[in-house]
Amino acid sequence: MTIERIRAASERLARHARVTPLLSSPFLDEIADRRVLIKAECLQHTGSFKYRGARAALSALDTQTLSRGVIAFSSGNHAQGVARAAQELAAPAVIVMPSDAPALKIANTRALGAEVVLYDRATEDRNAIGAELAATRGLTLVKPFDDPEVIAGQGTCGLEIAEQARARGITEAEVLVCCGGGGLSAGIALALEAEAPGLRLRTVEPEGFDDVARSLAAGEITPHGRPEAGLCDAVLTPAPGTLTFPVLARLAGPGLAVSDTDVLHAMALAFQRLKVVAEPGGAVALAAALFSPEVEADTVIVTISGGNVEASVFARALETL
Amino acid sequence: MTIERIRAASERLARHARVTPLLSSPFLDEIADRRVLIKAECLQHTGSFKYRGARAALSALDTQTLSRGVIAFSSGNHAQGVARAAQELAAPAVIVMPSDAPALKIANTRALGAEVVLYDRATEDRNAIGAELAATRGLTLVKPFDDPEVIAGQGTCGLEIAEQARARGITEAEVLVCCGGGGLSAGIALALEAEAPGLRLRTVEPEGFDDVARSLAAGEITPHGRPEAGLCDAVLTPAPGTLTFPVLARLAGPGLAVSDTDVLHAMALAFQRLKVVAEPGGAVALAAALFSPEVEADTVIVTISGGNVEASVFARALETL
Repeated sequence: MTIERIRAASERLARHARVTPLLSSPFLDEIADRRVLIKAECLQHTGSFKYRGARAALSALDTQTLSRGVIAFSSGNHAQGVARAAQELAAPAVIVMPSDAPALKIANTRALGAEVVLYDRATEDRNAIGAELAATRGLTLVKPFDDPEVIAGQGTCGLEIAEQARARGITEAEVLVCCGGGGLSAGIALALEAEAPGLRLRTVEPEGFDDVARSLAAGEITPHGRPEAGLCDAVLTPAPGTLTFPVLARLAGPGLAVSDTDVLHAMALAFQRLKVVAEPGGAVALAAALFSPEVEADTVIVTISGGNVEASVFARALETL
Repeated sequence: MTIERIRAASERLARHARVTPLLSSPFLDEIADRRVLIKAECLQHTGSFKYRGARAALSALDTQTLSRGVIAFSSGNHAQGVARAAQELAAPAVIVMPSDAPALKIANTRALGAEVVLYDRATEDRNAIGAELAATRGLTLVKPFDDPEVIAGQGTCGLEIAEQARARGITEAEVLVCCGGGGLSAGIALALEAEAPGLRLRTVEPEGFDDVARSLAAGEITPHGRPEAGLCDAVLTPAPGTLTFPVLARLAGPGLAVSDTDVLHAMALAFQRLKVVAEPGGAVALAAALFSPEVEADTVIVTISGGNVEASVFARALETL
C-alpha cells in the first residue's frame, strides 16, 4: 500500500465522491473539554464511506472485467456502496445477502440496480455460492476492506481530513476512526502519514469487539472471538485484515473501545448539535472523543463513518437526551 | 437591496459561515419523479441559516456600535444566530425571550454567551422591554428578517446555490425555499437574479400559514391572520416584511403550501436518505419537492433551512416511515 495508490484513487473519485464537511459545535467541545472536529462521512453517497472504496475498486478494473460485473458479500453499507458504484459505471453487480437481512436493506440494494442473491445462513455456505457465481459469470469479487484499491478509496477520506485540518491551521491532533476490518483506518493512516504527519490515528471499536485494539496491543492479529451481533453492526468484524493490520501496526494506536451506552448518547448529541444522522457503528469515534478518559490531545478529529440506522434504533438513541 | 450588498456580506462571512453541501439521493429523485438537490442549511453554525444574517448584520456595524452590543427578540433560530455571531465578534448580546420558552432553548442561548431577558407574554410588552434596554444600554436591534444586512447575509446562501448549480451544469430549475418573513427567500432570489437567472424561486409555507403565497397572489402584503402556533414554528411569521415582500413580488412565486403530514414525512425521508436532521419549518420545501403536484420543473433545488427540533417531535416524524 502506497500513498500514490490513494492519490490515484482520489483522481478517479473526483466529482463522484462527495467531499464531506468537517463539522463542529461549541457544545461538543465543552463536553469533551477539547476541540472536536467531525468528518461527516454519513453524508457520503449511500450514507457511508463505503462508496469511496467501492468506486475506487470498480474504477480500477479494466473495461472488459468491469463489463462482466462484480460480486460482493454484504447486507450493509458495503453492499450499497458497491451497488451504487456499479450502477454509475454501468457494470452488473451481484450482492449476496443472508435471507434474513432486513427487507429494507434488500430493497435498497435492488433499487440501486444490483441483483440480490439470498442464501440461508443456517444451511448454505455464502463463499461457495459466491465462488460458483463468480466462476460461471466471470464476476470480480469486491472485498469489504482487505483489498488495496478499497483501502486506497477509503484513504481519500484521509486526504480530505489532511487538507481540511491544514485549512484550519491544525498540525497536531488525534484522529479517531470508527474501525471494523480496518479499511477506512488503514487508508486514512496512510494518507495522514504522507500529508499530515502530526495527525495520529487511533482506532475506535465497541467494547468486547475490540479485535483491532487487542491486535495492536499484542502485535499480531487477534480476533475478538465473539459472535457478530451487537448494536454497532457496521463495525463488528472479527479481526483486522492481512493488508490493513500491518498498516495499522505501523501507524495507529493505541486502540480505543466504547460502551453501547456512550454510543447511543453520541448518536443523540450528533442529532442535537450537528444535525447529522449517525448509525451506531458510525458513532463509536465520536463517543470516544466525548467520553473516553484515554483521549489526550487538545484537538481531536473523528469520523462519523455512516448513517444507515433503523428509525427504531435512532429513537432509542434520542431517549438518552 | 442590491447584489453588491450580498457580495459584500459574502466577503465578510468567508471562513466564518460554512459553505453547506448540496445533497441528493436517487431514492428522493424517484419519489419526486424529478431531480432534487438539497441545500443543507441545517448544517450551518447554530443549526440554521440564521447565523448568516446575524453575522452579516453584526459585522456591518462600526466598532463602537458593536462594542455597545446588540439585542434581538427570539426564542428560536434567530436568537442562536445572533448569540453566536456576537460571541465571535466579542459583542454583548441581549436576547429577549418569553418566560415560557423551552428551557433547552434558553440554556443554549446562554451557553453561546448571550444575556437572556425573560418576559411574561400575558402581561408584558416585549417591544417596550426591548426599547427600554436598547435606549439605556445603547444596544442595536437586530431584526429577524426585515433588515437589509440580514437579507444580504441570507443571500450568501443563494450565491452558494448559484455556484453549486453551475458546477453541476444546471441552468434551469425551481428553487424552493422555506419561508417565514421572507429574509432567506428574498436574499436567495436576489442572488439568483444576478448569478443564475434561469433558477426561479418559489416560497414554501405550511398550509394555513401561507401569508407569503397569499401576498404574492394578491400583489400586496396579506397576513395569514392565524395565531403563531403550529408544528412548523420556525416559519409561522404573520406576514412578509416591507423590505422582503417587494423583492419576492418581483422575483418569486407562485408560493406553495404543504400539510403537516407531508412535512413530517419529508423529515423522515431526510433522516433516511440524506442523513440530516430537518426541523419541521426547515422541511417544508423538501415536502413540496416530494409531494406537491404544483411543482413543475425537471430539476428542483430545495433548502433545508434548519435542524433545531425537539427529539420528541423528531421521533413523531420517524413514525411515518
